[in-house]
Amino acid sequence: MLSGYLFKNIRTTQRLLRNFSSDAKFFKVEVVSNHRKAPLQTQRKSIAPRFEKKTRQKISDYLKQMATPEIEAQLAPLRAAVKEYGDLIRDLKAKQAPKIDIDKAVVELKARKKLLEETEIALAPKEASFDRLKLEDLLKRRFFYDQSFAIYGGVTGLYDFGPMGCALKANMLQQWRKHFILEEGMLEVDCTSLTPEPVLKASGHVDRFADWMVKDTKNGECFRADHLIKNSIEKLMNDKKVSAEIKKDGEDVLARLEGFDDKDMHEVITRFKFKSPITGNDLTEPIAFNLMFPTQIGPTGDFKAFLRPETAQGIFVNFKRLLEFNQGKLPFAAAQIGLGFRNEISPRQGLIRVREFTMCEIEHFVDPEDKRFPKFAKVADEKLVLFSACNQLDGAPAREVAIGEAVANKTVANETLGYYMARCHQFLMKVGIDGRRLRFRQHLSNEMAHYAQDCWDAEILTSYGWIECVGNADRACYDLQQHYKATNVKLVAEKKLPEPVDVDIVEAQANMALLGKKYKKEAKKIQTALQQLTSEQVTAIEAELVAKQLYNLDINGEKFELAPDLVNIKKYSKKIHVQEITPSVIEPSYGIGRIMYALLEHSFRQREGDEQRTFLAFKPLVAPIKCSILPISANDTLVPVMDAVKEELSHYELSYKVDDSSGTIGRRYARTDEIGIPFGITVDFESGKTTPYTVTIRHAETMSQIRLEVSELGRLISDLVSGRQQWSDAQAKYPKFEASAE
Amino acid sequence: MLSGYLFKNIRTTQRLLRNFSSDAKFFKVEVVSNHRKAPLQTQRKSIAPRFEKKTRQKISDYLKQMATPEIEAQLAPLRAAVKEYGDLIRDLKAKQAPKIDIDKAVVELKARKKLLEETEIALAPKEASFDRLKLEDLLKRRFFYDQSFAIYGGVTGLYDFGPMGCALKANMLQQWRKHFILEEGMLEVDCTSLTPEPVLKASGHVDRFADWMVKDTKNGECFRADHLIKNSIEKLMNDKKVSAEIKKDGEDVLARLEGFDDKDMHEVITRFKFKSPITGNDLTEPIAFNLMFPTQIGPTGDFKAFLRPETAQGIFVNFKRLLEFNQGKLPFAAAQIGLGFRNEISPRQGLIRVREFTMCEIEHFVDPEDKRFPKFAKVADEKLVLFSACNQLDGAPAREVAIGEAVANKTVANETLGYYMARCHQFLMKVGIDGRRLRFRQHLSNEMAHYAQDCWDAEILTSYGWIECVGNADRACYDLQQHYKATNVKLVAEKKLPEPVDVDIVEAQANMALLGKKYKKEAKKIQTALQQLTSEQVTAIEAELVAKQLYNLDINGEKFELAPDLVNIKKYSKKIHVQEITPSVIEPSYGIGRIMYALLEHSFRQREGDEQRTFLAFKPLVAPIKCSILPISANDTLVPVMDAVKEELSHYELSYKVDDSSGTIGRRYARTDEIGIPFGITVDFESGKTTPYTVTIRHAETMSQIRLEVSELGRLISDLVSGRQQWSDAQAKYPKFEASAE
Repeated sequence: MLSGYLFKNIRTTQRLLRNFSSDAKFFKVEVVSNHRKAPLQTQRKSIAPRFEKKTRQKISDYLKQMATPEIEAQLAPLRAAVKEYGDLIRDLKAKQAPKIDIDKAVVELKARKKLLEETEIALAPKEASFDRLKLEDLLKRRFFYDQSFAIYGGVTGLYDFGPMGCALKANMLQQWRKHFILEEGMLEVDCTSLTPEPVLKASGHVDRFADWMVKDTKNGECFRADHLIKNSIEKLMNDKKVSAEIKKDGEDVLARLEGFDDKDMHEVITRFKFKSPITGNDLTEPIAFNLMFPTQIGPTGDFKAFLRPETAQGIFVNFKRLLEFNQGKLPFAAAQIGLGFRNEISPRQGLIRVREFTMCEIEHFVDPEDKRFPKFAKVADEKLVLFSACNQLDGAPAREVAIGEAVANKTVANETLGYYMARCHQFLMKVGIDGRRLRFRQHLSNEMAHYAQDCWDAEILTSYGWIECVGNADRACYDLQQHYKATNVKLVAEKKLPEPVDVDIVEAQANMALLGKKYKKEAKKIQTALQQLTSEQVTAIEAELVAKQLYNLDINGEKFELAPDLVNIKKYSKKIHVQEITPSVIEPSYGIGRIMYALLEHSFRQREGDEQRTFLAFKPLVAPIKCSILPISANDTLVPVMDAVKEELSHYELSYKVDDSSGTIGRRYARTDEIGIPFGITVDFESGKTTPYTVTIRHAETMSQIRLEVSELGRLISDLVSGRQQWSDAQAKYPKFEASAE
Repeated sequence: MLSGYLFKNIRTTQRLLRNFSSDAKFFKVEVVSNHRKAPLQTQRKSIAPRFEKKTRQKISDYLKQMATPEIEAQLAPLRAAVKEYGDLIRDLKAKQAPKIDIDKAVVELKARKKLLEETEIALAPKEASFDRLKLEDLLKRRFFYDQSFAIYGGVTGLYDFGPMGCALKANMLQQWRKHFILEEGMLEVDCTSLTPEPVLKASGHVDRFADWMVKDTKNGECFRADHLIKNSIEKLMNDKKVSAEIKKDGEDVLARLEGFDDKDMHEVITRFKFKSPITGNDLTEPIAFNLMFPTQIGPTGDFKAFLRPETAQGIFVNFKRLLEFNQGKLPFAAAQIGLGFRNEISPRQGLIRVREFTMCEIEHFVDPEDKRFPKFAKVADEKLVLFSACNQLDGAPAREVAIGEAVANKTVANETLGYYMARCHQFLMKVGIDGRRLRFRQHLSNEMAHYAQDCWDAEILTSYGWIECVGNADRACYDLQQHYKATNVKLVAEKKLPEPVDVDIVEAQANMALLGKKYKKEAKKIQTALQQLTSEQVTAIEAELVAKQLYNLDINGEKFELAPDLVNIKKYSKKIHVQEITPSVIEPSYGIGRIMYALLEHSFRQREGDEQRTFLAFKPLVAPIKCSILPISANDTLVPVMDAVKEELSHYELSYKVDDSSGTIGRRYARTDEIGIPFGITVDFESGKTTPYTVTIRHAETMSQIRLEVSELGRLISDLVSGRQQWSDAQAKYPKFEASAE
């Protein structure tokens, strides 16, 4: 399970807030690109004027929050210089100094401001000018995805994927399956979404998978309590009439909000007199709202079930079958790609927070005493940006570290966890996530479930902040033990002992005849509880029975009085050859929709010099469609070449889209660029003049073109898609083609 | 929607029963294999003795039901000959004839019986000896799939797919996507399972997607009414104490059961005094039980929703976006692969009847007046086994017909429907369905929804009878019109008129001021209803308003009195250049789980001479794993060859499983045969003796082997998997290898 965003313990989490909080320590990361190393003066200073005023303001705002320490160091003296003249002017005005002095100072202030602004633009990473509205417009217009049931008014938190989104998602899933299931030899399973209540009771979801909500006391409208507090405080901070003291208090609440329980939140709402942001009505006390969708199986109405909030439980309940499939051997990994459902209280942020989503989960079962990973050496030198719990507590930035070093110095708990983090990094880079906007953040001890041993989230920086997209957790033996407790079916593996050993066994056996008389139907439950006791526990019970002639057995809070005649203590010695162990579980859990959204942001581009012309620069590997075929005109003479191109592409199973509409070639390029088609094949009047036929390929991201024979198309584009060749390789091999004006 | 098994109208369907009824006319099909053409005497007479007595009986029983007319013609004289001597012996006994005469007759009877039995075995198709228990044992043991949540006691109708089932399903889906979405250029979408109630109200599911059930009056246990009646009557038929008259009555009920409504079923249950088969208690009257899983979206509890019973509605509600994506042009097809859910009353038959399933649906939108299909000529000669409504009513067998002929003579309604039927046939054959056990059955007029124009189910013969696996329906304009009525959002395409025409428009406009006063909140609904009227309807209303000064508007049964002042009738003339049309929908709908189950039955084999040794002969294209790698011993000298083989296979992205366990090679072959690995690569002591290395490939189905160089492995197996080469081609090219005893 993606602990945190997919599994929440009311008392300890609600921690996604972090992504949107203004708590600066969470936004520091050492930039790892080459960008920062380029000398200031060479950095696209020339293109600064292309940005509108609004964009310039946004860059400035972005840098105030997101600047790396290095960028900040360069900006600080310029900011100070601006402030100096701002203060000076205020001072002159207060002193009623001569107008000429003030005017002179203002000219200098403007010059200093301009320098600051230009430096900001030059230093800002390209995402700083990212315009979410423009991306959303593109995604909606070209039907990547859109709100479900829009003609019925729509449903928040539900999205339908159109042809482009669907193909992008399918390509990502195919890469995931190849990268993990095939390359690592995992056992893939496909379990049901419908899940009976007892399974989710055992896993802890029935009791703890909830958020706190408050309701409008008059119209019953619901708000997630932590979101309401955060938004209300932010409003307060921007209100000039609010005193500095209250603002300080609000800031303090924001910093601690993540750890709040219902009482804390109620206290804040009462103290600040927060009301419904819609109606201004009073709010109820926080109520726990379970995020699972309830339903019933069968016609009687008494078989309660839920839609699974994660796919993981399906793997745990199949553990025995999977172990057997693996011929009883540990370690092994099982994986599942499927739907998860969570009934968010009032989801807002597009694909980041949805009620139905695709996830990919791995459960790697391993001997708790040996979490080494045979192939770890292969990834040990891989460098990841790690934001350890220590760094977070010290206010230190994230650091780029080789995963081998991080495991060696115990920053990351063990090789298996480290291996999966490295593979996660590889996967995200492979599909096209920008490495400069990716970090692995370790959970603080108060965020982690009590049983978890270590957890690192892959967080991706988007315009919504750092978003948790993958959880990599060492969950110890918790899940299997919980299902064992609930079912009394042993979920263990056998580990051969180096040599047989004699062990003393102490067992508590229920005297069912007497127990049945006293406890009727409950007798079976008591019997099961006694069977599950360890030798040490039985020894303790025996002592108490002897001492007090009575033992109070506690089964999940229910107490049962046991007199000595109800329990037989049996002791014997046994030679054992194998040891039964409950495997530890390392769980990487991928939220595909979130990764896809981040990918869309990271792939979004505006043409330099024409901000209106937006496009998506996908990696060819995941691009929904690999090629466009564009005839330069509707002339019949082009048809044989078009047919030859289609046949060549089909032979290599490369998807293509023909755009033979009447627009100019430039307009058609722009249309295909928008949906992220990486390669445009143009059939022009030269194409069919000689045999073999030739065509041009245009690389959408750079708009550069080459000319080649049709018979070379398939292999070249296949190689470009798989990454066996880069576009620069193709440029080196084939003659450049200079397009007439687009 | 797969009308019938996925969409049921209580009053007209419940027709799946057909699959299990003993009504013989449904089991006739002209066998199209060459098998029946082989002369009797050459037909594996020699292998008859390998069958146990139980198996022989089963074959005989199977033939009584499933024999083709041709087989029956050969068996009839032999049956008559047996009967002749049976009658003779009874006669002799009655006459108390001398023992010697009787004995002589018995000897002759036995000889005649033996001849009949041997002929039956010789004529029977191989599926007649199919042993479902043996298949189920294999599927469970090797975890193809198994009951979900088994450690919690299991849930009927829910199944989890293990690694082999999961890979088989993924391969089938990949082929489906390639065969339909890519090759036909369809628009793929991915919509949510959660569906708001109004959407399913409009589609008709809220009101009609139900089965009749009866309850045990004492313990409340539920039974599907039609299943209970069928099972109870069948029990009665086997009861020797029941009179012939009652049996005749029961037979009559079975034949008509499909068309029964609740009253008919209640009458039967009462007349025959049927009780709960479990407790013998009385039963309630039939109650309609809606088969959708209910849930709520959001925290308020008043946003009712269901899990979708089919994926189709997601496509319909996105029609406008998809049409726009297709630049406004008809025809186009959209497709979706996803989950469907139906809350079966008491599902029993494994993967055939489940509560959560994967389906693939296509909605092909087309001009209702022009359902020609441009590529139809490509499939026109394809021969399909068609079981037309006429054939069914005449008691005639299904016939093999070219689809071009069937469309030309109007057996199949139009080219588009015919094209999809041919493509369906191709797909099912491609994944490995046995063509002899596949037919297309046309819906009888009483099975079809009133709006449907034609419907052909692809039915596959399994041990459960003929199972509907794919529905191919022409649903006319029903679905889009329903959603238009519910939302007032026009779901139409524009069709350019050959030349502009003047049309007279008559519109009824609501006088909202007065209407609001009289009908308050309902005014809006009345306005919408008036807007949706056709010119003809408005003219009729006008006439009535003039005549009676009053019109009773009926909105879904609600009546609203409209006086003339509430409605303004507006008439004008308009020149129109385009005509708005609601497209017709042709809907192929695939139940993947059912096809997969049929495929498993059709691929199941027992080795001749060793009935215990079972295996799965999948087409390599869909086989979960393509190759096994088996070292003949654990000797270290084999390691370099093993590594070379693995590298060669990985290079071609061919999945493999290494079995280096200590069993004999024969035992290991058997293990890999069981999970349907088509090619076994054996590394033996010859392999590494010379370079280049050589290995053997064993073809699991035939157990024949060839020897070749490791560097040739990848391309050969790729070709065998894709179907570019057959095993016989490989045998012709490479030297045969004679295995030592398996």
